[in-house]
Amino acid sequence: MDIPYLTPLPVDMLRRLGIPSDWNFGLADRVRFSELDALGHVNNAAYLSWFENVRLPYLAQARVTDYGPSAPRLVIAELGVRYLKEMLRGEVYVLTARTASYRNSSFQTDYAVFRITDSTAELTCSSRAAIVLRSRDGTGKLPIPDAAIAHFTRVDGATKET
Amino acid sequence: MDIPYLTPLPVDMLRRLGIPSDWNFGLADRVRFSELDALGHVNNAAYLSWFENVRLPYLAQARVTDYGPSAPRLVIAELGVRYLKEMLRGEVYVLTARTASYRNSSFQTDYAVFRITDSTAELTCSSRAAIVLRSRDGTGKLPIPDAAIAHFTRVDGATKET
Amino acid sequence: MDIPYLTPLPVDMLRRLGIPSDWNFGLADRVRFSELDALGHVNNAAYLSWFENVRLPYLAQARVTDYGPSAPRLVIAELGVRYLKEMLRGEVYVLTARTASYRNSSFQTDYAVFRITDSTAELTCSSRAAIVLRSRDGTGKLPIPDAAIAHFTRVDGATKET
Amino acid sequence: MDIPYLTPLPVDMLRRLGIPSDWNFGLADRVRFSELDALGHVNNAAYLSWFENVRLPYLAQARVTDYGPSAPRLVIAELGVRYLKEMLRGEVYVLTARTASYRNSSFQTDYAVFRITDSTAELTCSSRAAIVLRSRDGTGKLPIPDAAIAHFTRVDGATKET
Repeated sequence: MDIPYLTPLPVDMLRRLGIPSDWNFGLADRVRFSELDALGHVNNAAYLSWFENVRLPYLAQARVTDYGPSAPRLVIAELGVRYLKEMLRGEVYVLTARTASYRNSSFQTDYAVFRITDSTAELTCSSRAAIVLRSRDGTGKLPIPDAAIAHFTRVDGATKET
Repeated sequence: MDIPYLTPLPVDMLRRLGIPSDWNFGLADRVRFSELDALGHVNNAAYLSWFENVRLPYLAQARVTDYGPSAPRLVIAELGVRYLKEMLRGEVYVLTARTASYRNSSFQTDYAVFRITDSTAELTCSSRAAIVLRSRDGTGKLPIPDAAIAHFTRVDGATKET
Repeated sequence: MDIPYLTPLPVDMLRRLGIPSDWNFGLADRVRFSELDALGHVNNAAYLSWFENVRLPYLAQARVTDYGPSAPRLVIAELGVRYLKEMLRGEVYVLTARTASYRNSSFQTDYAVFRITDSTAELTCSSRAAIVLRSRDGTGKLPIPDAAIAHFTRVDGATKET
Repeated sequence: MDIPYLTPLPVDMLRRLGIPSDWNFGLADRVRFSELDALGHVNNAAYLSWFENVRLPYLAQARVTDYGPSAPRLVIAELGVRYLKEMLRGEVYVLTARTASYRNSSFQTDYAVFRITDSTAELTCSSRAAIVLRSRDGTGKLPIPDAAIAHFTRVDGATKET
């Protein structure tokens, strides 16, 4: 299959690639030489930049931010990563993102890496990150915009934490 | 105080810098320009390279590996990071490492970043990583060397998971 | 125009994008957040990884190497870069590569970055790198394969240095 | 010899380490695992971050900038690098910087990497970068401060280009 890289993929293409149906936002990329370490596989830190690559367009689509000059600061407070399979140079993968749950000014986002081959989409890495909306001047937290909460609930099936 | 960078610090220097007494392995470093992102603070992925910087000498001192040609592969299976404070260019910090618990062929390692100023050592980031010892050919797991278990228990106060 | 990313582009697409006719190998990519520095623009070091991204598939297509286990080591001996225009997050660019001249076991490769907008391909950065073929054991130099010299002359119009 | 890392070294220590007498600004560092690529040696792009590491304190000491909010933008217009020797994990090196020549609003800076062993300082990489002082708003060039020209001439022996 011909996969358009670096662009949010239509949901039906995610399904045809074999990405599980609880992921509705994804984009394709390939492992670069500069992401390998001396062991010859993708270094554990490189995955965090990958999640950043999918998080930024995801947060724009979910209406959390427009990245404008007066947009809130989005700060990662906590993250967890599970490294399930090694990855090697040139491999094609799809990064996915969604929101699992939210509070007033913070939310839990999930990420996954699926290695794409002719026949399968194999989960190689998964991650969760807690994101907090802070004011530009750093003095306080800001509420999640209503449009974002609508997206979290409707598209991602996220729940409100109590 | 004059801090020697990039070299494991004597325990009494860790104490004088204000590092809590449950950390016995640490080394000092400074934030580089290349570790900042467009927000002007240390990027979340850079911390993983910092933990790598302290993990490698820690694992050698703890006798887990000599990094020789027949040494086991040390694979990170899972990690968690808590980002507590932003960090900025030029700041001096001490990275610490220790082992919290172990099984037959895997162990849980803890890391912390302390920002050093004249008066305090301020915890800015903490992390836990699960490490697995794998054979070179990838076919199986290898047991933790006895000398490493001795170090884990005696120096780090690690406990065996059951 | 719809540009396929991360894949060598057909020559007629290079022409339609406005890439000058002395470039016959190119691939498209986008600026990532992790490539920006604290000044908010692409850091000077990031361009070297970009040139690496285009060099690797270029050298395979030019038959210099198949990156197999017995392939020669390709070592960069010298490089020059001219930074003509700043680049910013999300910008689309085409990387190009070709060989300018060759000797027995070394050759001069040229690279360029073109920022792609609806109307133009704007040169933002150019580079030249001298590459040497070395034996695996590092003891000596290896000759450029005949198939590569044929590619250098026929496709790139490279000349032999005397 | 005990070398203080990450701090500009006194000139007499540069001499005792074997750094040639035409270098008067240098700081020591060690190769990190994250700077290696899949070939197991320091990647060509990593050297550019090293030169950045020495350039920033050098430009402050030379009074080119105080990195304050109204300081000029320092833009690299062109650079050249000669890779003379491979470098490996854990190696200790001294980075050096100086200015070779200047015009009204631009100047040529030189850099070198010396691998330090017990007996020698071995040149492994050298570089030249042309730097331009630009106004914050990007509209024009700014003159080099007089104090910087005094430093360039007196300490570095730089000459004015005509």
